[in-house]
Amino acid sequence: MKVSAIITLKKDVLDPQGKVIHQTLDGMGFKNIDEVRQGKYFEIDVKENDPSKAKVIVEDMCKKLLANLVIENYKIIETQ
Amino acid sequence: MKVSAIITLKKDVLDPQGKVIHQTLDGMGFKNIDEVRQGKYFEIDVKENDPSKAKVIVEDMCKKLLANLVIENYKIIETQ
Repeated sequence: MKVSAIITLKKDVLDPQGKVIHQTLDGMGFKNIDEVRQGKYFEIDVKENDPSKAKVIVEDMCKKLLANLVIENYKIIETQ
Repeated sequence: MKVSAIITLKKDVLDPQGKVIHQTLDGMGFKNIDEVRQGKYFEIDVKENDPSKAKVIVEDMCKKLLANLVIENYKIIETQ
């Protein structure tokens, strides 16, 4: 089954990339934006049909490789 | 309100970055993976309290800047 992981920067960590996107959108006429924050998204197809077990596996991947827990948070989402 | 956009590569588009992550995870002992695909994630704080209107604004952003519709799909998610 497919499990998705969203990795976002923690609230207090500066996000220069998001800021540039914000400025660009502003320049394109999108004036009503408060903030843009960028993150990473992974869709992982795990050979495991039990949703809770698959989530645990992906959570483990986030902790060990995908996310830098010092500055990032992760969120696991069931896709299929 | 906060609206999130997930940008993913279309199914038939090769994802070398995802492949490398797959290989790395495999080398770390996660042997039960079928596929990893990477995408982008944006959390946009729009000055608009109507969820459906906010979604339309973010969808417009995806079409005009955030996603390359030739090779990418987008999905809008309500966050708050």
